[in-house]
Amino acid sequence: MSTRTPLSPTPRSTVTRIKDRARTDRADLDAVLDAGMVCHLGVLLGDSPVVLPTIYGRDGDTVYLHGSTGAGNLRAALRGEISLSVTHVDGLVYARSAMHFSMNYRSAVVRGRPVEIADPEERLRALRVIVEHAAPGAWDRVRPPSKKEMAATMVLALDLTEASVKIRTGGPGDDPADIATGGVWAGVLPLQQVWGEPIPSPDLEPGLETPGDVLNRFRA
Amino acid sequence: MSTRTPLSPTPRSTVTRIKDRARTDRADLDAVLDAGMVCHLGVLLGDSPVVLPTIYGRDGDTVYLHGSTGAGNLRAALRGEISLSVTHVDGLVYARSAMHFSMNYRSAVVRGRPVEIADPEERLRALRVIVEHAAPGAWDRVRPPSKKEMAATMVLALDLTEASVKIRTGGPGDDPADIATGGVWAGVLPLQQVWGEPIPSPDLEPGLETPGDVLNRFRA
Repeated sequence: MSTRTPLSPTPRSTVTRIKDRARTDRADLDAVLDAGMVCHLGVLLGDSPVVLPTIYGRDGDTVYLHGSTGAGNLRAALRGEISLSVTHVDGLVYARSAMHFSMNYRSAVVRGRPVEIADPEERLRALRVIVEHAAPGAWDRVRPPSKKEMAATMVLALDLTEASVKIRTGGPGDDPADIATGGVWAGVLPLQQVWGEPIPSPDLEPGLETPGDVLNRFRA
Repeated sequence: MSTRTPLSPTPRSTVTRIKDRARTDRADLDAVLDAGMVCHLGVLLGDSPVVLPTIYGRDGDTVYLHGSTGAGNLRAALRGEISLSVTHVDGLVYARSAMHFSMNYRSAVVRGRPVEIADPEERLRALRVIVEHAAPGAWDRVRPPSKKEMAATMVLALDLTEASVKIRTGGPGDDPADIATGGVWAGVLPLQQVWGEPIPSPDLEPGLETPGDVLNRFRA
């Protein structure tokens, strides 16, 4: 690790439940965020929280979010603190007793106060980060945003200072008595996200080849 | 649909952005929730929202959540309204322009005030719903919760009255000018969750067969 601060530097972002699943290395946070397609964003609407799925991108210790300038949820996000979480479910843990059923997962939870990006160059760079997060290698071969599209788009930046990561791996944590009794199958059923074969748009001109950034992902 | 109320019955749960993705049939809500492994739960901690991944189960128009009685987040959930969201990413939509990149997805967003379940029979039934949601068919062949385990467990019920569902399918919604210009590949890269081969627990007694509920899932 470099000079970057460790995770969970504040009491409220310190993992308090099942602490052995907590990670404090920023590389773990980066990996969880980079592997996600959507985050779940929690904003305060009126007096109560609402959780919304949204795409995002990470650059260093900043997460970028974007949306329409008409989106009330992003406006609400600017009025106070928000939270976002990215979770990957890697498997279902079958135990010998109901209460020890669990999941293998990697999850990140971030809290903080976002800021709106006003600078045109930084806005464009943030949108590039978001598109490249979702579709690595695609930005340079598609039409960039027009002035009109940029004007209709709001970009938010959230600092990753206050973040926590939890990772569970491995088999069930059954009670010794249940293991001794035996007779009940226990183990893990792995779960994985898999890309399928690219489906060209029906209005695509004939003969246009599927680009490498799409093909490589499918074949990875 | 039956006599169940339609979705989005209140102004604040009515979808306002990209309305053609909104669904109002409760069967869509049920399907999105039933297909999920974790939900993202938004609770108010202090003055700000925090989003946490957690498992859940649905029974009719109720979602059940559970956790340790020592979990501050569940206690916080009881102090006011919460929100939860379940999202499935079904594919990445590659467009001819950066701003039209999108995802195919199914998502549900629920808001409401949860109640703690005190009745022992209903608590046990709720735990069964949660375990059977994560691992269909497993409850009856594993050790049920002990009195001690039940005493250490908190169960919350959230009514599905106020919920919204959004579903996006299909190819990119490119601008006609970009389609006319041509030369840029556009289409969908499907994304799917796939179960892997069951991994028996290392401490499993030899000769114990993998049960049908686990095998069927892997083979589905």
